Amino acid sequence: MQDLTATDVIATKRDGGALTDAQIDWAIAAYTNGTVAEEQMAALLMAIYLNGMSPREIAQWTRAMINSGRRVDLSRLPRPTVDKHSTGGVGDKISLILVPLVAACGAIVPQMAGRGLGHTGGTLDKMESIPGWRADLAVEEFVRQLDGVGGAICAASEDLAPADRALYALRDATATVASIPMISASIMSKKIAAGPRNLVLDVKVGTGAFMTEAGAATELAHTMIDLGAAHGVSVSALLTDMSTPLGHAVGNAVEVSEALDVLAGGGPADVVSLTLALADEMLRLARVDADPAAVLASGKAMDTWRAMVLAQGGDPDAALPAPRHVERVTAATDGRVDTLDAMQVARAAWRLGSGRARKEDAVQAAAGVVCLAKPGDPVTRGAPLFELRTDTPDRLDAAMRDLATAVTIAPAGEPSHAGRELVLATIRHDEPTR
Amino acid sequence: MQDLTATDVIATKRDGGALTDAQIDWAIAAYTNGTVAEEQMAALLMAIYLNGMSPREIAQWTRAMINSGRRVDLSRLPRPTVDKHSTGGVGDKISLILVPLVAACGAIVPQMAGRGLGHTGGTLDKMESIPGWRADLAVEEFVRQLDGVGGAICAASEDLAPADRALYALRDATATVASIPMISASIMSKKIAAGPRNLVLDVKVGTGAFMTEAGAATELAHTMIDLGAAHGVSVSALLTDMSTPLGHAVGNAVEVSEALDVLAGGGPADVVSLTLALADEMLRLARVDADPAAVLASGKAMDTWRAMVLAQGGDPDAALPAPRHVERVTAATDGRVDTLDAMQVARAAWRLGSGRARKEDAVQAAAGVVCLAKPGDPVTRGAPLFELRTDTPDRLDAAMRDLATAVTIAPAGEPSHAGRELVLATIRHDEPTR
Repeated sequence: MQDLTATDVIATKRDGGALTDAQIDWAIAAYTNGTVAEEQMAALLMAIYLNGMSPREIAQWTRAMINSGRRVDLSRLPRPTVDKHSTGGVGDKISLILVPLVAACGAIVPQMAGRGLGHTGGTLDKMESIPGWRADLAVEEFVRQLDGVGGAICAASEDLAPADRALYALRDATATVASIPMISASIMSKKIAAGPRNLVLDVKVGTGAFMTEAGAATELAHTMIDLGAAHGVSVSALLTDMSTPLGHAVGNAVEVSEALDVLAGGGPADVVSLTLALADEMLRLARVDADPAAVLASGKAMDTWRAMVLAQGGDPDAALPAPRHVERVTAATDGRVDTLDAMQVARAAWRLGSGRARKEDAVQAAAGVVCLAKPGDPVTRGAPLFELRTDTPDRLDAAMRDLATAVTIAPAGEPSHAGRELVLATIRHDEPTR
Repeated sequence: MQDLTATDVIATKRDGGALTDAQIDWAIAAYTNGTVAEEQMAALLMAIYLNGMSPREIAQWTRAMINSGRRVDLSRLPRPTVDKHSTGGVGDKISLILVPLVAACGAIVPQMAGRGLGHTGGTLDKMESIPGWRADLAVEEFVRQLDGVGGAICAASEDLAPADRALYALRDATATVASIPMISASIMSKKIAAGPRNLVLDVKVGTGAFMTEAGAATELAHTMIDLGAAHGVSVSALLTDMSTPLGHAVGNAVEVSEALDVLAGGGPADVVSLTLALADEMLRLARVDADPAAVLASGKAMDTWRAMVLAQGGDPDAALPAPRHVERVTAATDGRVDTLDAMQVARAAWRLGSGRARKEDAVQAAAGVVCLAKPGDPVTRGAPLFELRTDTPDRLDAAMRDLATAVTIAPAGEPSHAGRELVLATIRHDEPTR
């Protein structure tokens, strides 16, 4: 191998050149073993942020991150494997329903999930509000649970794509997170290393999402689909609306509770609808012939949920944590809810304690916001719009201020923004965008 | 002051925005005290490298670096103060002659100099080949010597622009050195903090210089002249040719020896000519009416040199260190020297031990190269072209390979590249470039 140095690799990207496969492999390996210093990788990340990477570079960067750790082998499992990844929404409890549902339909769903940072909640934070449930599974336990139960939601193993973990923290500290090459490589290296043969991406678009424009979301989707193809993973993407929260609940225990409503056959229509759309695409990719709506109605998805919770030490019958303090925000006028801003609701829930400002912070299981009226719903003056839940009442004032401007109420007769399509587009490998 | 965070400051420059004065002051202060981490400053430096800075931003960045330490007060000295800075050339021993010469002409020359890194030598490394001479002066000693002797060459005080020292090391590690805003701010913060009211820049252009194109060198000169004006320092710049070494000697003791030849009234014509051109501009800025050629011929500059060396513990009469090994490279053909590449000569001298690869390396006082034939000189086959000096003969082979391709010999009748103008342009404040 040629004699590589950090400054040469940085200078190549700084000057708008393409990194060679050898440069990428060396940079990731040398960063992982400490030869490339944090400040050198930071300079390279900013150069990549500003000068971009070609599809070949992104594929190699992803390969190098996968190769920094182990790749789980799920090839001996008896049924097809398929996972889902969401780029992060507000009130996004879909995984809690989707994983047991698709498993109950006959596929195997190996989901390694994350904790929340910033305004979007983390699936693990939500699951951890279930008394006794533990997020950490050894890879062997993970595979055994998939074999027995069909689905698992657990923390990403430390052995998978360790380079990504270090890089993510560095990107967060250096304002280099929002780079499509880096986002794609980060998501796909972890997902590919976890072993599924198929993957459906829920790429969120709107005020509550990381991508506020459909154009960038589409580019991200195509980049990740191509990365999947380069690593033998079939990937589809649904672009879905994230301008208003999914369902009513935003938080941790409060979202688990709403997911249980859906598993029990009820729950908010938007949550049910998006869950079924994602399940359809997952089953299509995995070539499993099943009707998820019927399986949901049959109660089999709830059975799988209970088995999943039990397998990880949780008590599916235990009461979920209740908050010490509950407050309400009421409507100032009669009319109909016109818009409900996902980002402001997320910020309020975060302030109340459902999220964390720094990686090492703890979250409150019982904190969150319940949106009692969604776009299109009629409201009367003084009627409750939001329920605020927290264990730390000193945070209520700031959250109430966020929520006061989160909702707009139109006169009852005016046309509403409600009822927009939840699934904006479906993007599949080698298919033009529709 | 508003609540500033590193990621907000980085994101501003990442997105092509202009940093506010408050953001710049905060970033430099917070980096100096450790609140902003190395990797965060590295990301900011790369964003500045790629997206640039406006004149206002550069001026504020420079101001913040000056404010990170003390600024020497030379206002009580009885004569006008003027310094010179060279952007770094090969065989550039000009300061050794120019500082005592301009002091002997009646100005005060407060030169804080640096050590060499990479291919260009450092003035301090050259001076340290004088037995007993010490580079470190406390600021009070520096001012006292200026008052008594009129000139001083010493190491930059640790108290001056400490932010620049830390930033320089970081730029070097992150391939962000070659940024005109950063180069200008780095040079000017140190020079302004050292206290002179006037400054002449020797901006080198050519294969042996940092800037190989006159366009970039001109931009650098204008940026530094504007920075001087923003801080009450009158600055002029001479753009000078650095395609071939200055004089014959490239190294440490060997350059001191050549400087002494000039101070004694002899020496190579190009060294004499550039020294006088710089002296003329320094005296013009300082409004000192003197003829430097006459002062040089009078021996007064040599007297001041001796006083400067003595004041810093050196013995002006001591023999300079001699190398343990001397080797020669001879001409392969008859003809006339057509070109002599500064960069290749510099690399050979560096390999022989005159420079350092890392900041903590020591240099050999006696190592270097003497160019026995310069462009335009006639040569005969077998005649010596270079003398190689080193204490470590294992480095001779590599240096000889560098030198074998450093020189081109044309038939005696062909037109020569020699005799080009040494001073390519003079740039003054508020004057158009000529």
